[in-house]
Amino acid sequence: VSASVTTQHANASGVIDLARGDPHPEFLPLERVRAAAALVTAGADPAVLQYGYEPGDLGVREQLAALLGRYGGAAPSPDALFVTAGASMALDLACALYAEPGARVLVANPTYHLALAVLADRGLQVEAVASDADGIDPDALEAALQRGPAAFVYLVPAHGNPTGVSLPPERRDAVLALARRYGVRIVADEVYRLTAFGAGDADPSAARIVAGLADVAPDVALSLGSFSKLLSPGLRLGWLQGPPDDLARLARRGLLRSGGGLNPFTAALVRQLLADGGFDAHLAFVRARLRARHDTLLAAVRRQLGAARVRPATGGYFLWLDLERVDVTAPTFTAALEQAQVRVAQGAQFVPVGAELGAARSCLRLCFASAAEADLPVGIARLTDSVRRVDSVYSLP
Amino acid sequence: VSASVTTQHANASGVIDLARGDPHPEFLPLERVRAAAALVTAGADPAVLQYGYEPGDLGVREQLAALLGRYGGAAPSPDALFVTAGASMALDLACALYAEPGARVLVANPTYHLALAVLADRGLQVEAVASDADGIDPDALEAALQRGPAAFVYLVPAHGNPTGVSLPPERRDAVLALARRYGVRIVADEVYRLTAFGAGDADPSAARIVAGLADVAPDVALSLGSFSKLLSPGLRLGWLQGPPDDLARLARRGLLRSGGGLNPFTAALVRQLLADGGFDAHLAFVRARLRARHDTLLAAVRRQLGAARVRPATGGYFLWLDLERVDVTAPTFTAALEQAQVRVAQGAQFVPVGAELGAARSCLRLCFASAAEADLPVGIARLTDSVRRVDSVYSLP
Repeated sequence: VSASVTTQHANASGVIDLARGDPHPEFLPLERVRAAAALVTAGADPAVLQYGYEPGDLGVREQLAALLGRYGGAAPSPDALFVTAGASMALDLACALYAEPGARVLVANPTYHLALAVLADRGLQVEAVASDADGIDPDALEAALQRGPAAFVYLVPAHGNPTGVSLPPERRDAVLALARRYGVRIVADEVYRLTAFGAGDADPSAARIVAGLADVAPDVALSLGSFSKLLSPGLRLGWLQGPPDDLARLARRGLLRSGGGLNPFTAALVRQLLADGGFDAHLAFVRARLRARHDTLLAAVRRQLGAARVRPATGGYFLWLDLERVDVTAPTFTAALEQAQVRVAQGAQFVPVGAELGAARSCLRLCFASAAEADLPVGIARLTDSVRRVDSVYSLP
Repeated sequence: VSASVTTQHANASGVIDLARGDPHPEFLPLERVRAAAALVTAGADPAVLQYGYEPGDLGVREQLAALLGRYGGAAPSPDALFVTAGASMALDLACALYAEPGARVLVANPTYHLALAVLADRGLQVEAVASDADGIDPDALEAALQRGPAAFVYLVPAHGNPTGVSLPPERRDAVLALARRYGVRIVADEVYRLTAFGAGDADPSAARIVAGLADVAPDVALSLGSFSKLLSPGLRLGWLQGPPDDLARLARRGLLRSGGGLNPFTAALVRQLLADGGFDAHLAFVRARLRARHDTLLAAVRRQLGAARVRPATGGYFLWLDLERVDVTAPTFTAALEQAQVRVAQGAQFVPVGAELGAARSCLRLCFASAAEADLPVGIARLTDSVRRVDSVYSLP
């Protein structure tokens, strides 16, 4: 990935990027942020520029609680919420809170690859737990917990990265019961939770928003949320929802005592957008556009890559595609992709170090949120060409 | 310290707070930030809302380099700069970069107390090095380095917290030579560096800005900077200046790869203020007002607490006051302060755990940046009353 001088990712012109998980510029509401910034700085009180309260401004947490209530059921208490500088920072803080360096952490396989990097940087020993197309296998999780203590279990249970599917409620409940029985925390990376494809803003309850783990099990689960996929990554704003005692411990860490709350100014902008309805209107747009993009990509895959196994996503940014007998890690295939000017994410990068590659050898993660929508079928055509180059008899429609 | 629902600190009305290190609201330029936000969001390009380049937008780093050049000498290369979400975060990242948990870190005594909390939270073993009124003693530092390996040395060399004085150039050079000889990094917390009292904005070079350690020794020193004391803590923007290879390693950590640059939106606001001169104008105001506040507090101390030993600060937020035979940790004294409704920071809290309390037993850190200027002499009157209560024959003018 070549780096831009301003943003994290940039490609040479002509490349269609289905690999990266950035929102397309259409999802970045510059006008709304402009209006919020004008309102937040319009008064005479410069408190938004001061050191912030460690868990985040109470008003922001109240607005956030109300948002989660509108889209997920019961609004949590503000004491169960903690404002962070994005979900990656939230995961880093969760590591600090729950795990000593060297501790064992259990993860599904595949899972979000950069979370694995955050865990490794904290010196944690990551162990993959057997998973299938629905996510982590509770029996395998129990076996892993019986083998020895773990600091926590990291999951992406809602419209997951990389597979786009959600942990079914019965599995979720089994996992939470195990967490209670074995005394471990579940760290649930739920940054895609509110992107559920559904009925739009007319009736939020009709959206198929999956439950947050911290809502279902407020005693053992810590949910990570973020505005990056809903509003803007550049604002670096996210949150933790979890046991208030855990969050109170977090507030007493040196980083928080020294620096104050993690992002008071951008939190004030988001508070404004939550309060005035701007956020909900944008979220309805995001969900509708993601669904349309998802449908476009899925149709292209089915039309052009008939033999590939793919399961519709229920939200989020990604489709997980199994090309079965194609080894997507083979240099001939990656060379073909490069020549075709299409970028995709290899399944192998979502497999924890030391775990069996297994089916991931033939899998790709395709992002439908980042490229221009019109480029999605073109990208799939290029992918299909690349498959044909390495497997001339690959079954195509 | 009671917490506000919005900002980190709040006091009951009537209390004069000389303890905390927040900027007074007069230092928070709401109008300037409002104008910058309007400009940054005025275009059609929403890149400021996207995931940011891991080390920070190149344009921001170029502006920052130019700023450091204007106030400190040679402008560093942008490759030697890394944008962070404040200096506390920068210190936390420095720990991750240079120290394994359990590693030994050397610090001056006294030193910034909340840095000690950040180091402890990272699992580091902090060892105090003998220091005098000018700062860390190079001979004692060498003895400590001879006793065993250290991951780094943490210092606040510029208008230091808590003492308000700067490490003299000959000591600084001796410390840097030791760092080279023993192969350890110096982590220099320089958040007060640009607050040097001086000639104002007409001629920046006339300001008595002390050299940054990363300027003097770009091979071994990592300087931490921040806009918190210069512009706004709530924007959560700071920087690292140090060896480019170290910063490149930082950019590859999971936290950065997953979340992108640490605060792209607020960085864009500050870039605007750096580019259009708004920042320099504000900094001139900050330095002039800090100097006036310093002079007011110092005069009050000398007038009302004649026997106290105090040394003028050359910049920063603090005066370090030695009441000599008064034990400021005594419950009778703290009760007297509370009754008098004045808050001060006890010297003891700046002494690393396990180090001798020594002279810090009779010392106080007084902040002249946070309370209203008119309250500074009133606060000293209350402090003087409190001293009289515990020592009726304390020598007063």
